[in-house]
Amino acid sequence: MISPPDLLLEPIVRSALAEDLGRAGDITTDAVIPADTTARVAFAVREPGTIAGLDCARLAFSILDPKLDFRIVVPDGSRVGAGDVIATCSGSARSILSAERVALNFVAQLSGVASATAGIVRAISHTKARLTCTRKTVPGLRALQKYAVRTGGGVSHRFGLDDAVLIKDNHIAIAGGVGVAVRRAKQATGHLVKIECEVETLEQLDEALDAGVDAVLLDNMSIQTLRQAMKLIKNRAVAEASGRITPQTAPEIAETGVDLISAGWLTQSAPALDIGLDFVA
Amino acid sequence: MISPPDLLLEPIVRSALAEDLGRAGDITTDAVIPADTTARVAFAVREPGTIAGLDCARLAFSILDPKLDFRIVVPDGSRVGAGDVIATCSGSARSILSAERVALNFVAQLSGVASATAGIVRAISHTKARLTCTRKTVPGLRALQKYAVRTGGGVSHRFGLDDAVLIKDNHIAIAGGVGVAVRRAKQATGHLVKIECEVETLEQLDEALDAGVDAVLLDNMSIQTLRQAMKLIKNRAVAEASGRITPQTAPEIAETGVDLISAGWLTQSAPALDIGLDFVA
Amino acid sequence: MISPPDLLLEPIVRSALAEDLGRAGDITTDAVIPADTTARVAFAVREPGTIAGLDCARLAFSILDPKLDFRIVVPDGSRVGAGDVIATCSGSARSILSAERVALNFVAQLSGVASATAGIVRAISHTKARLTCTRKTVPGLRALQKYAVRTGGGVSHRFGLDDAVLIKDNHIAIAGGVGVAVRRAKQATGHLVKIECEVETLEQLDEALDAGVDAVLLDNMSIQTLRQAMKLIKNRAVAEASGRITPQTAPEIAETGVDLISAGWLTQSAPALDIGLDFVA
Amino acid sequence: MISPPDLLLEPIVRSALAEDLGRAGDITTDAVIPADTTARVAFAVREPGTIAGLDCARLAFSILDPKLDFRIVVPDGSRVGAGDVIATCSGSARSILSAERVALNFVAQLSGVASATAGIVRAISHTKARLTCTRKTVPGLRALQKYAVRTGGGVSHRFGLDDAVLIKDNHIAIAGGVGVAVRRAKQATGHLVKIECEVETLEQLDEALDAGVDAVLLDNMSIQTLRQAMKLIKNRAVAEASGRITPQTAPEIAETGVDLISAGWLTQSAPALDIGLDFVA
Amino acid sequence: MISPPDLLLEPIVRSALAEDLGRAGDITTDAVIPADTTARVAFAVREPGTIAGLDCARLAFSILDPKLDFRIVVPDGSRVGAGDVIATCSGSARSILSAERVALNFVAQLSGVASATAGIVRAISHTKARLTCTRKTVPGLRALQKYAVRTGGGVSHRFGLDDAVLIKDNHIAIAGGVGVAVRRAKQATGHLVKIECEVETLEQLDEALDAGVDAVLLDNMSIQTLRQAMKLIKNRAVAEASGRITPQTAPEIAETGVDLISAGWLTQSAPALDIGLDFVA
Amino acid sequence: MISPPDLLLEPIVRSALAEDLGRAGDITTDAVIPADTTARVAFAVREPGTIAGLDCARLAFSILDPKLDFRIVVPDGSRVGAGDVIATCSGSARSILSAERVALNFVAQLSGVASATAGIVRAISHTKARLTCTRKTVPGLRALQKYAVRTGGGVSHRFGLDDAVLIKDNHIAIAGGVGVAVRRAKQATGHLVKIECEVETLEQLDEALDAGVDAVLLDNMSIQTLRQAMKLIKNRAVAEASGRITPQTAPEIAETGVDLISAGWLTQSAPALDIGLDFVA
Repeated sequence: MISPPDLLLEPIVRSALAEDLGRAGDITTDAVIPADTTARVAFAVREPGTIAGLDCARLAFSILDPKLDFRIVVPDGSRVGAGDVIATCSGSARSILSAERVALNFVAQLSGVASATAGIVRAISHTKARLTCTRKTVPGLRALQKYAVRTGGGVSHRFGLDDAVLIKDNHIAIAGGVGVAVRRAKQATGHLVKIECEVETLEQLDEALDAGVDAVLLDNMSIQTLRQAMKLIKNRAVAEASGRITPQTAPEIAETGVDLISAGWLTQSAPALDIGLDFVA
Repeated sequence: MISPPDLLLEPIVRSALAEDLGRAGDITTDAVIPADTTARVAFAVREPGTIAGLDCARLAFSILDPKLDFRIVVPDGSRVGAGDVIATCSGSARSILSAERVALNFVAQLSGVASATAGIVRAISHTKARLTCTRKTVPGLRALQKYAVRTGGGVSHRFGLDDAVLIKDNHIAIAGGVGVAVRRAKQATGHLVKIECEVETLEQLDEALDAGVDAVLLDNMSIQTLRQAMKLIKNRAVAEASGRITPQTAPEIAETGVDLISAGWLTQSAPALDIGLDFVA
Repeated sequence: MISPPDLLLEPIVRSALAEDLGRAGDITTDAVIPADTTARVAFAVREPGTIAGLDCARLAFSILDPKLDFRIVVPDGSRVGAGDVIATCSGSARSILSAERVALNFVAQLSGVASATAGIVRAISHTKARLTCTRKTVPGLRALQKYAVRTGGGVSHRFGLDDAVLIKDNHIAIAGGVGVAVRRAKQATGHLVKIECEVETLEQLDEALDAGVDAVLLDNMSIQTLRQAMKLIKNRAVAEASGRITPQTAPEIAETGVDLISAGWLTQSAPALDIGLDFVA
Repeated sequence: MISPPDLLLEPIVRSALAEDLGRAGDITTDAVIPADTTARVAFAVREPGTIAGLDCARLAFSILDPKLDFRIVVPDGSRVGAGDVIATCSGSARSILSAERVALNFVAQLSGVASATAGIVRAISHTKARLTCTRKTVPGLRALQKYAVRTGGGVSHRFGLDDAVLIKDNHIAIAGGVGVAVRRAKQATGHLVKIECEVETLEQLDEALDAGVDAVLLDNMSIQTLRQAMKLIKNRAVAEASGRITPQTAPEIAETGVDLISAGWLTQSAPALDIGLDFVA
Repeated sequence: MISPPDLLLEPIVRSALAEDLGRAGDITTDAVIPADTTARVAFAVREPGTIAGLDCARLAFSILDPKLDFRIVVPDGSRVGAGDVIATCSGSARSILSAERVALNFVAQLSGVASATAGIVRAISHTKARLTCTRKTVPGLRALQKYAVRTGGGVSHRFGLDDAVLIKDNHIAIAGGVGVAVRRAKQATGHLVKIECEVETLEQLDEALDAGVDAVLLDNMSIQTLRQAMKLIKNRAVAEASGRITPQTAPEIAETGVDLISAGWLTQSAPALDIGLDFVA
Repeated sequence: MISPPDLLLEPIVRSALAEDLGRAGDITTDAVIPADTTARVAFAVREPGTIAGLDCARLAFSILDPKLDFRIVVPDGSRVGAGDVIATCSGSARSILSAERVALNFVAQLSGVASATAGIVRAISHTKARLTCTRKTVPGLRALQKYAVRTGGGVSHRFGLDDAVLIKDNHIAIAGGVGVAVRRAKQATGHLVKIECEVETLEQLDEALDAGVDAVLLDNMSIQTLRQAMKLIKNRAVAEASGRITPQTAPEIAETGVDLISAGWLTQSAPALDIGLDFVA
């Protein structure tokens, strides 16, 4: 649950602030709030969930006004209940009001991902299966969303097209089969690159295992086929199951013995966690 | 339903491609697919919805490979059913495979927003109320998400902190009341800036109307209070209702006669629309 | 007179420093001034005027050398006379000499705008008319120039093409009339967007008022026509007069009762204020 | 009169367009003008002057819409009279209207600089003196403004702090004299760097010439002192006169025999040239 | 030998052009060469080597002037002799002269890396060992240098700190041993991340193999120790040897049976290949 | 030996860190090293040389973690022996390990350039000739490499195409001769731009001197021709000799009396200096 370094977060947070402040800044706050007013606010969650993204909130405040005092009360990865205070900030009221929405947008989005992840992780905790995500992410937020998945108890998948080989159905179709595709990939890549191959049938699975893949992506298989696949695999490769994973369907899939379940839904469709900012007297 | 100009979309799409390609590009495709293979693909929706974001898909392909031939079949704003083809692309198989995920991520996210918007718009179509969104958006995608809301039949709200005044509860608390806050805002802003004020009680509403606001944000009021509020307003200001809007709650709220309903959920939590890319023989 | 936040000023000041330092930095100062020499300088105005842009000067020095001690003596918006000291800076002589020109360029340009604004504002102070600017600005400096106008006592106009509707003569010509243009604009824009329409005749004015515009831009009308226009308007819309506004012509125009006078000259042609930097013993 | 390459102009023009388009683009034009309307416009000057900056106008249109057909009628450097058409553009009416103001802002600003330059150049054309500018430029536009000076018949001065040595009064004061300052500069710089030194007295001039400078900046000297200085110099260095240069004062200064006259006013305070855009039937 | 996509190369080439053109562009060429002169040039190598980087040369010319006609004669990866022409370019003489140095700098640097790589690859071609590089690269050019290594016949190592685990001596020292370090890494990383561990002794090697690493980095071991290490490993992990690899030392190391030899020298110290640009009559 | 200002170094160092950290940061260190571990490291050189680039190392650490305490022990320009400690850093072990390679890459590259320069400077120290470099630099690092040349005792040449005129063989060929080329350049450039001309024969040299160049580049001349050239020049211009300069050939060339020797090899092919980072107990 180690956050990406500030070096990587800063440009993202800075862009989000610029997106909100536009050309003239916060004209409401500038007009309505006297310059010397100070305030103290608390970030409070309105519904149960798992927290992620507080470093982005910290940066939103410190980039806008380095004098603000932002304190994390409950760190990323914590499971919280409605009403829990997760962070506080005190200092210039103008600065707090102007950065508030950006800070909340990051924490709400990322805690949404973390909470969705944690929900499925709990549902499959009686199995050895771990939960992971995909490249179905929100443009510009992939590193943050993947961090949120880890924060919620999930594990990493590849970050992009260049850090691992994942041969998909279309690659196989164009290349002319699982075997040729895997062999080409093995020949072209270095010793620190793992190779995973999507398979839709047991025949393809057989071919992939024979070609020596590191992992297989069992896509949209029935529970029965998954069980047969696991027998075939016998620890020769990491087994990842995918396809319309929900908290309801996950346990049965996990019980087939797969190592990993991957869900695009976590980073593409998980609802934001409801978090508000309360002014403290 | 006019898309932001390419000038504004390009940096966002370019960043998304760079995020996915990383430092070494698409190592799977480069290894597995011969350089001279061509392909033709169809973007097909897997569930009913409303389309938005095809310009981003077009840019994703053309930025990666200007020679790709991307064609929009069903334009943004169209209501589609499962199986409908919304766009096609033909050209280098490598280029298509390398840009595919980024293109899909934009269309899936934005069509998700458009579809959620369209759903509520239909639910309130028997009233005069229109649907709008908030500043609860995904960092970096606000202009695109707001475009998706318009594409789904919603209307624009302010784009950020600088293009309109929206006095919120915390502004009022610090300023010392609705009246003083609105008066300060009117004095500070130019003749082309509208002023909206959030109110939580009928007393605050009265004070805001007296101070001459352009719009009032009726936050989290009961249906009964909303009805009383509408009587008080009598067309003196635009009436916007907010607070936990869903397709279920929206009609009753809309029937109170409010001009606008605003829902943070549209841009913060609407699930992505399921869209896939099929290779065509 | 609230300056845009540092977040928005920093990239502009940083670019200006890079533009001056080039690839090798300040080769004169590096060669001629010993590294450990300290100095204290005073920013002194050489002619009467109104000050704007000191935050940019502060940033120019602090970005180049965070250890410099820059102090504002007379804040933005102050009216000053020849010889007045408006700010001081002390620290490394090398750093001061290397950032001096960039700091001065910002303050001289923006104080020029503020002084020109203040001059006309004084000339029309016996009327209710307020002074505003246009989109005829120096590329890259619009937000700063508009801030300088406010600093000189003027008021804001729209910041760009997206934060308000301003229907101009060419829009009207292509759309086929004032009425149709305004109606299209009202239909397309949200509840927080105001609509202003340029009119050149009383007939167009009538049509615009009937269509329900928020403001009218009375362009290049004679004093007599302006008087007739004001009678027609009768507070139904904000009245803005434009066209070759100078300190000489402004009073008579203002006396017609218009709400606003807009002058492109302020941001396009106002001469810089003469400001120098004196080394203090 | 060779324009900086497009590679250097593009980021400046792109930023200016983004500054104007904001987050939502041109909401007036999008609402009022049908998508398929075409138009043809002419850039017409409203007062006599010298043209500069048409490449920026060309880029403003082509970046926003590559399909626009922009044609230069009268190239940069041409002297024009009121009513002259300097360029035309035809294509999508929406695109033209959205890019119009940015294109005009560049041409008006830069033609203002070129026209002011040309005015003084004509006033001193009976002498051998040439006109140049300073580092008193508008932040972000230095390369363009210096190009405009050349376009108006002026010559280049250094572009920034790193491409030539210019020892100024404060350098001399801190270094402890003209001689030591020049000697340090000569020792520190390479064989392709020229050294100029500001002098305020004939004694300093003598010292600078003895130290072997390439050029002397005769700052704010009386006509009589300038004449004495020129006798002292006897072609041993380039002689540049500066200090409150105007079209009125320039001839007498030029007649003293100086090689160069430099005027900060050209790039800091020259009024924009009045240029408009007319729709052609 | 697939080049990174243009999307990734363009910003690097664009920066290099801007670095060379500065603020005023190529003042020599603009002054000396008439605008309408055309030329045709040939890139000729002056010494034997292996070519890499022609896509960067192509982009340097096309970014500066899209009308130039650049043609690759001998593709990246080709082994060439003195005098061989590898590419030609024809079009505006000014454009060619202004982009020439940047184009050559890329090709000379990257061909230097490719040639050095090819030299060692040939020296170890009688063994199964393959040659790879390290993270000792020139700042800003890593992706290009690693591509040049592949072009010269080498293979990829990790691209940075995030795409594979490489536990080094300092990690081991701080963590408290090879075993604990590897176990922590295995627990923390996803199923597509490989783990390599540096070992300096056979005891450490044993510990690493027991912990289940994918690869071991045998650092600075004697030939005799390497032989013992290979017996110990028995295909349980990829064996990479490093430490002062030169064309002279490489064969003996390769003959120990290691899978990989890594050399920082390739990307840190390989001399540029001498390539010139000849004007063709 | 004044380093470029941090303002210019920061973007380069920040990019280098981003290049190494990728999307997920240092996954090895994050997994293996506990968050609260502190360490102290020493930068030690492994071979004799001259140091350059410590400011880049300082920035690499401070940008990644402002709390690190980096101290320079031996400043840039120092001549060091194997084992010498040149800098230390203490603080978070994670931060040190994550920034280490980037910091070392800068210092190793730039010290390589400085050491190569110092070697030739020593070899010609019995003559009046000074050593300089060319535009044959590593893309993106020119300002840093030129600083390293100065640090090693060399002197500056022009930084790019815009800060001095250097007429080369191809310019002469196209222009139609040395004389016409120089005259065009003199006419086109300002009073602070020096003009150098490459000559390959004594006839060309004569023509260049007659045309009044500031410097001549004697390219690839034999020692005998160089001697004749020096007699011809008689201090009328700076004489720069170039062409395959090495520590072996440089002394004889320098002894011909030339003012400058320029070597592209310094910035294009000098091997990195071997520098390591040792953890201190």
